[in-house]
Amino acid sequence: MALRDIPDIVVGRLPVYLRALSRMAQEGQTITSSKELGERLGISSAQIRKDLSHFGEFGKQGTGYQIEYLIEQVQRILKVNTEWEVALVGVGDLGRALAHYNGFVNRGFRISAPFDSDPAKIGTTIDELKIMDAAKMVEEIRARGLKVAMLAVPAEKAQAVADKLVEAGIRAILNYAPINISTPSGVRVQYIDPVIHLQRMTFYLDMK
Amino acid sequence: MALRDIPDIVVGRLPVYLRALSRMAQEGQTITSSKELGERLGISSAQIRKDLSHFGEFGKQGTGYQIEYLIEQVQRILKVNTEWEVALVGVGDLGRALAHYNGFVNRGFRISAPFDSDPAKIGTTIDELKIMDAAKMVEEIRARGLKVAMLAVPAEKAQAVADKLVEAGIRAILNYAPINISTPSGVRVQYIDPVIHLQRMTFYLDMK
Repeated sequence: MALRDIPDIVVGRLPVYLRALSRMAQEGQTITSSKELGERLGISSAQIRKDLSHFGEFGKQGTGYQIEYLIEQVQRILKVNTEWEVALVGVGDLGRALAHYNGFVNRGFRISAPFDSDPAKIGTTIDELKIMDAAKMVEEIRARGLKVAMLAVPAEKAQAVADKLVEAGIRAILNYAPINISTPSGVRVQYIDPVIHLQRMTFYLDMK
Repeated sequence: MALRDIPDIVVGRLPVYLRALSRMAQEGQTITSSKELGERLGISSAQIRKDLSHFGEFGKQGTGYQIEYLIEQVQRILKVNTEWEVALVGVGDLGRALAHYNGFVNRGFRISAPFDSDPAKIGTTIDELKIMDAAKMVEEIRARGLKVAMLAVPAEKAQAVADKLVEAGIRAILNYAPINISTPSGVRVQYIDPVIHLQRMTFYLDMK
């Protein structure tokens, strides 16, 4: 099966597998099984085996998966065996929190180019990075060849900024603004939406 | 089928359906089909029909779904036809961004109780809410009967704060700290992890 024929929902589970495997490795574990991984994640072991089988043979019947090896393979499949430099647009409260976030380390991403349109912020530094003028965003992103961006601007600005990012060559946008944005085909958008996660939990709560 | 037997992965898709339906309603649409909803979301129409069938009959063969009616039903199922008051622990950059976030409106949640341990922040206000002393968190949460909390503290403090939240009666925690937390059964935890979303997109990128 060609990589482009793999269902996106399968691709979407790989980062979750990778995170669980990395945690196992951090805890000193060296071998796991689709059963154990499935129990950690609330996914059936058959589903995990089927998902991974799209990409190759990573374990042996009866002996399970070598965790380090499987981590390397999933990192390679997801193309996070390298470090992507990431543009950050909007250095408000959220952008600042993202710049300080230490959950990116060793997971394939590093914020390297923060932008804002506020003259009071332009030229100041955040985490040793100089905040650049959003008006120069397109040329800066092009010059650096960046492909990945995080969007942390107010909802009413999100579409206009996204258009500029696409013009600059960005192909993957993580959008924190609570609004849907349109992009040409070939440009991926993912949304961070806390409400989706909250609603998934209230289902289980007693309402009183 | 009893509600508690419904797979969590099905529950997890309902908020995504609800968001898409709400957008359709905002755009003035009144009727949709599992086919159209599926195309918007990249999910098969059979999956959508199957997911919804766990909860009842919401559409008619050939005529599709009444969007407003289906929204009301999904809101009821997810228990977001009410507004949950939410505790926010940690009013740093991220907590501040969450307090200002306008994506919660009309979706079932309202931050009503911000806490921090920094004496310089305690007693000041954010979005007209007084920031309370984290040392009084357990009694305040109990007194208000809160069940839902957002955790926006540094990774090294997350587990200790989560323990206190559980002690206070919180049953659903949205954790922004890049660390796994343990809670007793009956307490749900969801994670906001930008890397999961970024990795899902790099799969599709050319690496140069």
